Amino acid sequence: MSWEQAWLAYHCVVNYEDASYFEAIYTLESGKIIDNALEELRLATNKMFGKSIAIERSMPQKGICLMLIEEISLNEAGYKIERKNNLIFLSANTQKGLLYAVFALLRLAACKVSLSDVHLVSVPDKEFRMLNHWDNMDGSIERGYSGNSFFFKDQKIEVNERTKDYARLLASIGINATVINNVNVRAEATDFITEPYLKQLRVLSDLFESYGVKLFLSLNYAACIDIGGITTADPLDKTVISWWEERMELVYQHIPTLGGFLVKADSEGRPGPFTYKRNQADGANMLARAIAPYQGIIIWRCFVYNCQQDWRDKKIDRARAAYDYFYDLDGEFLENVILQIKNGPIDFQVREPFMPLFGKLKKTNHMMEVQIAQEYTGQQIDLCYLIPWFKELLTSRTYCGEDKDTIADLLEGKCCNHKGRGIVAVANTGNDENWTGHDLAAANFYGFGRMAWDSKLSPEEIVKEWISQTFSDKREVVMVLTKLLMMSWPVYEKYTAPLGVGFMVTPSNHYGPNIDGYEYSKWGTYHRADHFGIGVDRSLKGTGYASLYNPPLAMQYEYADTCPDELLLFFHHVDYNHILHNGKTVLQHIYDTHFEGAKKVEEMLSMWEQLKESISPEKYERTLIRFQQQRNNAKEWCDQINSYFYRKSGIADQHQRPIY
Amino acid sequence: MSWEQAWLAYHCVVNYEDASYFEAIYTLESGKIIDNALEELRLATNKMFGKSIAIERSMPQKGICLMLIEEISLNEAGYKIERKNNLIFLSANTQKGLLYAVFALLRLAACKVSLSDVHLVSVPDKEFRMLNHWDNMDGSIERGYSGNSFFFKDQKIEVNERTKDYARLLASIGINATVINNVNVRAEATDFITEPYLKQLRVLSDLFESYGVKLFLSLNYAACIDIGGITTADPLDKTVISWWEERMELVYQHIPTLGGFLVKADSEGRPGPFTYKRNQADGANMLARAIAPYQGIIIWRCFVYNCQQDWRDKKIDRARAAYDYFYDLDGEFLENVILQIKNGPIDFQVREPFMPLFGKLKKTNHMMEVQIAQEYTGQQIDLCYLIPWFKELLTSRTYCGEDKDTIADLLEGKCCNHKGRGIVAVANTGNDENWTGHDLAAANFYGFGRMAWDSKLSPEEIVKEWISQTFSDKREVVMVLTKLLMMSWPVYEKYTAPLGVGFMVTPSNHYGPNIDGYEYSKWGTYHRADHFGIGVDRSLKGTGYASLYNPPLAMQYEYADTCPDELLLFFHHVDYNHILHNGKTVLQHIYDTHFEGAKKVEEMLSMWEQLKESISPEKYERTLIRFQQQRNNAKEWCDQINSYFYRKSGIADQHQRPIY
Repeated sequence: MSWEQAWLAYHCVVNYEDASYFEAIYTLESGKIIDNALEELRLATNKMFGKSIAIERSMPQKGICLMLIEEISLNEAGYKIERKNNLIFLSANTQKGLLYAVFALLRLAACKVSLSDVHLVSVPDKEFRMLNHWDNMDGSIERGYSGNSFFFKDQKIEVNERTKDYARLLASIGINATVINNVNVRAEATDFITEPYLKQLRVLSDLFESYGVKLFLSLNYAACIDIGGITTADPLDKTVISWWEERMELVYQHIPTLGGFLVKADSEGRPGPFTYKRNQADGANMLARAIAPYQGIIIWRCFVYNCQQDWRDKKIDRARAAYDYFYDLDGEFLENVILQIKNGPIDFQVREPFMPLFGKLKKTNHMMEVQIAQEYTGQQIDLCYLIPWFKELLTSRTYCGEDKDTIADLLEGKCCNHKGRGIVAVANTGNDENWTGHDLAAANFYGFGRMAWDSKLSPEEIVKEWISQTFSDKREVVMVLTKLLMMSWPVYEKYTAPLGVGFMVTPSNHYGPNIDGYEYSKWGTYHRADHFGIGVDRSLKGTGYASLYNPPLAMQYEYADTCPDELLLFFHHVDYNHILHNGKTVLQHIYDTHFEGAKKVEEMLSMWEQLKESISPEKYERTLIRFQQQRNNAKEWCDQINSYFYRKSGIADQHQRPIY
Repeated sequence: MSWEQAWLAYHCVVNYEDASYFEAIYTLESGKIIDNALEELRLATNKMFGKSIAIERSMPQKGICLMLIEEISLNEAGYKIERKNNLIFLSANTQKGLLYAVFALLRLAACKVSLSDVHLVSVPDKEFRMLNHWDNMDGSIERGYSGNSFFFKDQKIEVNERTKDYARLLASIGINATVINNVNVRAEATDFITEPYLKQLRVLSDLFESYGVKLFLSLNYAACIDIGGITTADPLDKTVISWWEERMELVYQHIPTLGGFLVKADSEGRPGPFTYKRNQADGANMLARAIAPYQGIIIWRCFVYNCQQDWRDKKIDRARAAYDYFYDLDGEFLENVILQIKNGPIDFQVREPFMPLFGKLKKTNHMMEVQIAQEYTGQQIDLCYLIPWFKELLTSRTYCGEDKDTIADLLEGKCCNHKGRGIVAVANTGNDENWTGHDLAAANFYGFGRMAWDSKLSPEEIVKEWISQTFSDKREVVMVLTKLLMMSWPVYEKYTAPLGVGFMVTPSNHYGPNIDGYEYSKWGTYHRADHFGIGVDRSLKGTGYASLYNPPLAMQYEYADTCPDELLLFFHHVDYNHILHNGKTVLQHIYDTHFEGAKKVEEMLSMWEQLKESISPEKYERTLIRFQQQRNNAKEWCDQINSYFYRKSGIADQHQRPIY
């Protein structure tokens, strides 16, 4: 199966005044990472400028110099790019830093940024910049919308040219860690920590290391039962403890560079410490102790909730679950445990408040988990560029009581006792030739990495970089695609579940509208619409969820009057004629946004059609089909949502548009 | 895998005054069918009375005599049972008739009916009494709720002791034809009409013949493309015609006794004549001509409708489809074509009007298709004894303008130019040890056969026969089980979709409530509930469906005032406060029946628990679990339906019961 090179396509760059620097490279360093950096420079120079770049052993007249330096402020991954006379100097404390510098330089060249005044100092602001793949050993991908896995096929691990290209893509945007297998560890994947698999994983880990990427694995918490043959997985049981100690020793004998393990326990049917009446810290710490001698890390997912809820019960609230389970355990986790917390309290919706654990946990390492796989945001059929949404999250204030208090500050370790450790995305790749199914969905992959590196980047500048590298630096292409991508998230929000209420999707596949799809189910995701109004009361009169936030936010969310419109139905059950801050009634807002959203998708389709001559026919056609699907999908959402509320409320649209 | 004997268990019969007749059998006949009849008598005598029965070559002093006679009124399958002195005479025109007589005699004995005055003359009133299995070659069963297929496993046909027991079960209730493979003929099943399979099918056909059962097969209409390699399946194309002629010759060389083929064409994605702009008669007749030389029959399903309907369009009506496609073709089908028409215009719902083609087709052979597999009526988890429903259908008047005009009359060939040919059921069996998953679901299998033989039997007498044979003739068991089974269909109707509106089930699996599950879909099954009311307008102001019936019914259904309550929402969109004939508003009726239905299921569970001491522990426990599931299911239906309508209408329950 063939594949493309995404944003590392290195299209021919014409009329670039600084092409002449790409004649010679000079470096004294050697090693696997440096080799890969030089190989990348050579490949890119060849493709972008049609010439071979020479590796010099002495300083050239004109060219690129890679140098290791010692400069604390650059940290273990930062770099500098400067011009001195006819030389471009890339410098860093580590080989990894130099690799990042090379990719940065190539990005500048692809975007035709002048190098004459270049003085770029870049240090990643987050320690962990990580991907989570939900790939299964049989080659399927849970919530995967880009074909099958390129890591696994027929229960075997694959390491090949594509895996290498994957590592290059990660390195090019600064991603430094990845979990290759599904957090739901089923069947054969449990056996990853046995010898036959460990040998293969070592090869993969070495490849990743040569691109500065740490390999992590998802772990089956009950492996001591499933492969150890022990009858319990009680984290305080001595047999269990020593089984894990021995197992970790074996694992690290084979893969000394393994980053550690990701664990989803006690969630959606997965086993965990609750089974043995232990708490989440007992479970995580037991594994953390076993892995500590090898500097390994246990990443513990906080996606724990009761998935057998009775829809009749309006006092139980899934949104509270992670907070309720983990807040009281703050400080109970060992130093090599990192909690992985979803951005919102429900599940990767198009709009949610941030999880209230952020800004509340003060003594526990933690990271934020987002999802670029678009499970609930169009599944890489509907365009939804998520970086503006992540940017909003990152700039949200947590009111943790410190000077710096945004989520970005937190994840960068600037507040809450430096307990924020980074950011993680559920990946959106597969073995489709374009990696992400929808060509434009690769912007989420790229954008996640860039924003993980530097929260201060704007979604718009990221997208422009990505377009220039992926498609073309032609003004029209950059303009139209930037507009398309930047409008896509707000448009998706308009035509789907309104005002933060979430879900309303088809059960199990999560694509397409089904307003009552989860309303009478055990999953805890309700909208509570009746004849008079809609929304979930999470004030103190309801589930009390709003009060979990730090004071200024708790107060703001507590009352419908002060709650931001876009989250109103998440926090409050209001009448359809409740007036929003925008002056419209809730119901008229629903009608208006849905008609508008569907219409905007028509526009998006036309915008794509404008680009017909500027995009390769293959990419154009396969993307066109997706825009057409999105148009149909948006129409279904619009008509079903509007008809549903019209039928339920009996209140007509003020503008008498067609509702059924 | 082991299995039980269902109603042929032949439990020990104590204190039966007429056991003494079961000492000797006398017959002059021989042949495969007779051999099977004698074997059955021997087996049953042994198990019921603990003694061996002797086969005599001369008339015994006391015993049972099997005699072929010539008596036109008995037809090819009827029989007589009479006592003369110390002899019980079973007589018939055919060996098949004698086999039926033996099973009838054993039924009488199991029910301890006195033989002293026995004078039973029984002639089946319908020509075809048929089962359709939806079994796939991989062993799965479409809409099967009793395990896997016992006909197919791993793409192979199985003929073994279980297949023989299946044939015995059929013969014992008079079923004389069966289609063993899914009407959706996929993959390997297309190859049934090729030599390797034909050889195996011959063995099965011979086995069935020895129990008086004709084997039929489902046919892939496009087989001429798929295995013939022809580029078209146009029924008027000469290549197609001669391909089928040759193929039928080959088929009948191998299986001279094959009954013929069942065809689902142009339906739910299956290929058919519409693809070539031909009508349904063109397709059916082409095949019928090819099979005619061998006295074969083509059974052509009328389940043809557009499954890509736009839910926004209120003028299109799936209910009309079969009528619209087939009524105009009346008289166009060849004599060896039988149309197979579902009992109702939608799809095996708990309540539907009968299909208006009944009583309208006057020049085309046709049969009625019912479903005992309970796809929409509890899936053999919820108890739903369907024979009272079929009895209602059979006694419905079609107003075809003749003296005899019920559906039973029609299927018995007593009106409409004798074009009614019988009745067919989609089967509810699988390889579960009790054949039907739910032990009590076997009553539908048994009851279908009995009612197919004789429309005049009452559902209650059928069920009593079945209980005595299956469980015990203990008064309490018979009483409780009869009550349970007889109440089960009305109860199921109470707690599910109200007043004939249908569906409201979970999409794709069709089990459990989902009120809007199909409301905004392409499947054509809508309830059109809004804030003011509910129902589908099928009057002349709506889709005009009501007018398809013969006049008295068309008039009755046309108006909400005269439409029977139980079909009101099928034919009319009415306000929630519309007053039913029972004096209640539609909405209060919905609330009342749903609370009542859920409560009745609690009673049913208690009734079953009463029988704990009288039923074998294994049967008791496995059935108990199903009643518990049914209780939970009924509660979900009740609460979801009531909450849905309360939330939509804003109208409270008069009795303030819990609604959410």
